[in-house]
Amino acid sequence: MDYPSKVLAKAVEEISGLPGIGKKSALRLALHLLRQPQSQAIALGDSLKKLVTDIKYCRDCYNFSDTEICEICSDPKRSEDTLCVVEDVRDVLAIENTGKYRGKYLVLGGKISPMEGVGPNQLNISALGRKLESGSTKELIFALSATMEGDTTSYYIFRKFKNLNVKFSTIARGISVGDELEYADEISLGRSIQNRLPYEENA
Amino acid sequence: MDYPSKVLAKAVEEISGLPGIGKKSALRLALHLLRQPQSQAIALGDSLKKLVTDIKYCRDCYNFSDTEICEICSDPKRSEDTLCVVEDVRDVLAIENTGKYRGKYLVLGGKISPMEGVGPNQLNISALGRKLESGSTKELIFALSATMEGDTTSYYIFRKFKNLNVKFSTIARGISVGDELEYADEISLGRSIQNRLPYEENA
Repeated sequence: MDYPSKVLAKAVEEISGLPGIGKKSALRLALHLLRQPQSQAIALGDSLKKLVTDIKYCRDCYNFSDTEICEICSDPKRSEDTLCVVEDVRDVLAIENTGKYRGKYLVLGGKISPMEGVGPNQLNISALGRKLESGSTKELIFALSATMEGDTTSYYIFRKFKNLNVKFSTIARGISVGDELEYADEISLGRSIQNRLPYEENA
Repeated sequence: MDYPSKVLAKAVEEISGLPGIGKKSALRLALHLLRQPQSQAIALGDSLKKLVTDIKYCRDCYNFSDTEICEICSDPKRSEDTLCVVEDVRDVLAIENTGKYRGKYLVLGGKISPMEGVGPNQLNISALGRKLESGSTKELIFALSATMEGDTTSYYIFRKFKNLNVKFSTIARGISVGDELEYADEISLGRSIQNRLPYEENA
């Protein structure tokens, strides 16, 4: 498409570099910004630049943080006993939103994926090792994707650290709340029968 | 949701101010930018700021332009005889992409919509008047939305300028290429029967 203006063409090109946004949506977004007060696009532009230049990672868990040690790691009310291993920051947010976990986290920064060229060395596994060897962790909980890459990653970590005095567990797999059995895949359904739970009235 | 970092929270807030992008997608986009080289987010941020500060409008047709008069208006090969009245720049792009129009444009910048508080004075109708009164236009083509607002706008313009020596026409309404009659709405189908065309072998 031939854009009537170079600044518009450049903006459309940059916006459509984002995942899930094609040229048409990018143009729609650019025209939207042009209809709003200038300050909105300027604030958006500045906050994107600030995001990548100013963001810091917690030295301890690799979560995002504005301080050297993040709020979760520095919270004395949170238990050191359990360490929840997740792929990325979104997973921390998702688990925090449940309000069901009061331990600490370690953000791996991805999962082992030979297809995408991600090996154990690109992940924060040595940091995990240092944390486990310091001895405060009693239980490590894998909260990784239920995919081959997620399973490979937990297996790799388990093999590497199984000799330490740590209990390993993984989040439950089963039928999601609200799902109909008819439409569940057979692996999830199979696992949910194998790992059946005692029936509780108020579960 | 409680974000672990203020710069992240700010970026998510700004991104989710865009139409069609919720908090979850905004977070996904922010995390995507953090995984890419810093230069990508900086280029995106800069181009958004440049977009709203550097964009210019053609003095003649109100299309976007990098120069005072846009490429279409200054192209001597394009006929002055026909003037196509459109709502916004996207419509110019869409019509240009068909390659079927070699006249000039006038971008109204919206349509008359009492519901959204847009009256004729907010649109470039006086500029349209000056163009028509200069006498070079022989035919004015309405290429507006097939909605009540679009129809109101063309009617308003027609009433205002009908005494000038200009022929008024509107783009054809009918069944789109590839549409099944079964699913066409009755108004479009009705209009397409009323305005039927002589059958042509290579149409």
